[in-house]
Amino acid sequence: MKERVGFIGLGTMGKPMATNLIKAGYPMVVYNRSKGPVKELEALGARGAESSLEVAEKTDLAVTMLPDSPDVIQVVLGAEGVLEGARNGYTIIDMSTISPVAAQKIAKKASAKEVNFLDAPVSGGQKGAIEGSLSIMVGGERTVFEKCMDIFKVLGKNIVYVGVTGMGQTAKACNQIVVALTLEAWGEALVLARKAGLDLNLLVKALGGGFAGSRVLDVRGPHILAGDFQPGFKARLHHKDLRIALETGDALGVALPVTSLVHQMYGALKAAGKGDLDHSAIVTLLEDLAQVRLTGSRRTS
Amino acid sequence: MKERVGFIGLGTMGKPMATNLIKAGYPMVVYNRSKGPVKELEALGARGAESSLEVAEKTDLAVTMLPDSPDVIQVVLGAEGVLEGARNGYTIIDMSTISPVAAQKIAKKASAKEVNFLDAPVSGGQKGAIEGSLSIMVGGERTVFEKCMDIFKVLGKNIVYVGVTGMGQTAKACNQIVVALTLEAWGEALVLARKAGLDLNLLVKALGGGFAGSRVLDVRGPHILAGDFQPGFKARLHHKDLRIALETGDALGVALPVTSLVHQMYGALKAAGKGDLDHSAIVTLLEDLAQVRLTGSRRTS
Repeated sequence: MKERVGFIGLGTMGKPMATNLIKAGYPMVVYNRSKGPVKELEALGARGAESSLEVAEKTDLAVTMLPDSPDVIQVVLGAEGVLEGARNGYTIIDMSTISPVAAQKIAKKASAKEVNFLDAPVSGGQKGAIEGSLSIMVGGERTVFEKCMDIFKVLGKNIVYVGVTGMGQTAKACNQIVVALTLEAWGEALVLARKAGLDLNLLVKALGGGFAGSRVLDVRGPHILAGDFQPGFKARLHHKDLRIALETGDALGVALPVTSLVHQMYGALKAAGKGDLDHSAIVTLLEDLAQVRLTGSRRTS
Repeated sequence: MKERVGFIGLGTMGKPMATNLIKAGYPMVVYNRSKGPVKELEALGARGAESSLEVAEKTDLAVTMLPDSPDVIQVVLGAEGVLEGARNGYTIIDMSTISPVAAQKIAKKASAKEVNFLDAPVSGGQKGAIEGSLSIMVGGERTVFEKCMDIFKVLGKNIVYVGVTGMGQTAKACNQIVVALTLEAWGEALVLARKAGLDLNLLVKALGGGFAGSRVLDVRGPHILAGDFQPGFKARLHHKDLRIALETGDALGVALPVTSLVHQMYGALKAAGKGDLDHSAIVTLLEDLAQVRLTGSRRTS
């Protein structure tokens, strides 16, 4: 018989992930602050709970998918939290992107109650969540990871165990560094090319097949060239993720000069009211600086 | 009958490219400042010339493959240069990486003598030059491009016409921005991961199959993880290429904040005596800053 699974956090990512678990036949109990998504999942067969504590009481394992470190700490360690309702041998899989230090803190508290904890952040965005094709980076005890493999397989494709608690989040921080800097790189390249009068579709054709080719370009390139910044993955979340990377670097004594600059630029993007656009919208800052648009008429003014 | 082809600049890239043209059956006349590579190509059937002028007199088309803008200007426009020896209808293909402005200047002088000029920089490094698998970005008149297609096909695979004179070099500048920033991105990610105690092979496995995947990672990743910085493509040349990108941006009014920072870092790498290492050696600066090594024992001291 399948474990009873709890799911806490039914946002852009969490809702489709929970939906895939319901469709795969897992008995589900869900909790979310706003009740709309709870009702949608109830219609698919899930049971709604009144608190994270109730989720834990009624299930064998909980998945959390929340915006930031304080949210996960509150939901797991706080009053009426998961840990309050969890029995010995219960398992918590946090698939949010939070700081490695926060993950280690939660794991330690869980361990004291003989509750298992995995940090298992994902990459692949809403599209990956809907399709069940996320990349999942998992830290924690390997035996716990293996026990949860069937659940991971419902949610993702590229599932890699990367070491002890916190290593999943460390890997995710690395992922976010690479993706943000790649988006910035293409932003600078495209704005330069545009202002030089180069045909951007030809540029992408010339470069994409060579050493400059990347998955970021394959996936986001067509949207960027169409001026389409509908998320995808929101800029303000990438801003947060780079903050986590910088805090981690700071704690470890690792200087991240370019990550720091790109973090500043995501901050500027948020301040410009564009935090809810796709993270590739960082190119719009460069467009503004150069007074040029990639699409339509070339000059902004 | 095949055109008689001249080749000027028999360095890391030029020598294997000229070799491939000889093997493809083109009658070749070659010129190079140092005579060693000339003798090697003579042994393969090429004729050595005493000057660029002589190359032009004895051929229908010349390929130049030189380090920087002043070199190409000297070889094409200077005393005893290609243009001095070229007849009406002669064609010059510059495959060096130089500034778009320099390419436009040379094309204009050539045009005044009814000599064709293409700016056709390449990407793919020495490996691509040897294998004949370079990416080639070509600017100039389309009819001239089409006339030279057989030659391009000997040298490369992904051959794209990108527009008028200078657009080839503009595309190359964009390519070098993207590649340098991707190397820096992975450098920051790997050093952070290493100091956190994450297994770097697992990290690459977890991230490379997802959104952070790129050709740079596929090609250079294994070398970086092995601490192998044999070029490939030399750091000091990438420093030069980013200078070209910044000068182009400056001329066009395009701010390139992250390219600028990474250019500074390549300058620091050169100053540290590492300019002849592969461009991926930029990670060693980050290792120094964090006092950690990706390979062997973790601490530098």
